[in-house]
Amino acid sequence: MKFTRFTVDTIEYKGVLVEDGIREIKGNIFADWEYTGKVFSMDEVKLLAPLAPNQIIGIGANYVASPDERPNELPEIPVFFFKPISSVIGPEDEIIIPAGCDTVKFESELAAVIGRKAKNISEEQVFDYVFGYTVGNDVTAPAYFHETGHWTIGKSFDTFTPLGPFIETEIDPLSIRVKSRLNGEEKQNSGQELMIISTAKMISYLSHVMTLQPGDVILTGSPVGAEFVRAGDVIECDIEGIGILRNSFVKEAVSVDR
Amino acid sequence: MKFTRFTVDTIEYKGVLVEDGIREIKGNIFADWEYTGKVFSMDEVKLLAPLAPNQIIGIGANYVASPDERPNELPEIPVFFFKPISSVIGPEDEIIIPAGCDTVKFESELAAVIGRKAKNISEEQVFDYVFGYTVGNDVTAPAYFHETGHWTIGKSFDTFTPLGPFIETEIDPLSIRVKSRLNGEEKQNSGQELMIISTAKMISYLSHVMTLQPGDVILTGSPVGAEFVRAGDVIECDIEGIGILRNSFVKEAVSVDR
Repeated sequence: MKFTRFTVDTIEYKGVLVEDGIREIKGNIFADWEYTGKVFSMDEVKLLAPLAPNQIIGIGANYVASPDERPNELPEIPVFFFKPISSVIGPEDEIIIPAGCDTVKFESELAAVIGRKAKNISEEQVFDYVFGYTVGNDVTAPAYFHETGHWTIGKSFDTFTPLGPFIETEIDPLSIRVKSRLNGEEKQNSGQELMIISTAKMISYLSHVMTLQPGDVILTGSPVGAEFVRAGDVIECDIEGIGILRNSFVKEAVSVDR
Repeated sequence: MKFTRFTVDTIEYKGVLVEDGIREIKGNIFADWEYTGKVFSMDEVKLLAPLAPNQIIGIGANYVASPDERPNELPEIPVFFFKPISSVIGPEDEIIIPAGCDTVKFESELAAVIGRKAKNISEEQVFDYVFGYTVGNDVTAPAYFHETGHWTIGKSFDTFTPLGPFIETEIDPLSIRVKSRLNGEEKQNSGQELMIISTAKMISYLSHVMTLQPGDVILTGSPVGAEFVRAGDVIECDIEGIGILRNSFVKEAVSVDR
């Protein structure tokens, strides 16, 4: 099933993708929900990010270019980071390149959406706690990284976390290929065998640190091939079976004192 | 006014501190709320963290030992970090030292609670957007810092962000002294003149990066004097005019595979 959120004439709805459009639902997608009976056609809706995340957690460099580059030993403490929930935008929304830099990086990623409270779960249990998967773009402004290695500001600007278009609940995460196209040209295209820390290992590890909650979004890292982009560029992050997350880059309108 | 949350017989309430106890309120403290007419005495309530934060943002080393140690130039990009909202506990709750380390650090801090949506606000405007102030303890396990400088895991464990006991809406933040006592002995005691980046500058800077929202909590840094502690230690973070946030440290009960 493909869950989404959308607006029609500025009113916000939740729904499930069906053959002839989107069937509206009401309730909590992680608990109790039901169909309202209303169906919208795709050409009357504006898709939003498919959820308002509770929190967003990402992982640093987590793909290799070929399977023989996978390290023999996994890092003892993976490099995780948080992104603010205020950075979320939906499909077709504009990504704003902040004042003070001309370029930012896109990073197409598989985003796992936690569906049940998870604490101290094993790798084998992880997929029972994942509600579904969407496509994420971990937009990053390295110009705002701190020289001592802290990424927080460079990853926290408004519009820096496009998500969507759907949360797919029935896909096999191990079969997924994470792709991107910049202005139509393929830049990323990797399967899960190129991940350093698997989705299961990552979520199990995090659950031993913190209690994961429904609505937490885990960005599982970006394949080799992410590049710097400028205003006017168009990025499509694409996972077959989930959908295409398409956004264009614009420059911040007014230069503000920072 | 002093806002808080509390339980009586496992039922959760919100309230305002008054002379003879806590007057229950209902509604959204940042928008519309009203008194219910019920008053609880202090000896029947268990205080909780005074809010469930929307997000928690902290700043790295932000105090000097004496005013002449303040750097001439402020850092261009301050070191900010996020803490997960799952790490919040209330007064008197136990802080759990995770498996894999014997000691953690306490850090007593002034915590500013954002009350209104804030984007691109100037330093002069900041205090119009702050709802009030509470006491925070930015508990940290340096053993879980990544060698490349990332703090995320070391700051993200459950119980690592005690907050409380109250959000005081009428205190002058510039007059505040941030103190702590470890097992009764004073460890930290600094006024705002020892801050490197002021609360106003910090919140203005953040608002130029991200849209701050009601319920965002900004931990403004910890005075010189924070120390490592072990199971059995008791920490009191204390800001006169707000209250004393008291927690004890315990070891994680079961050693888990991480």
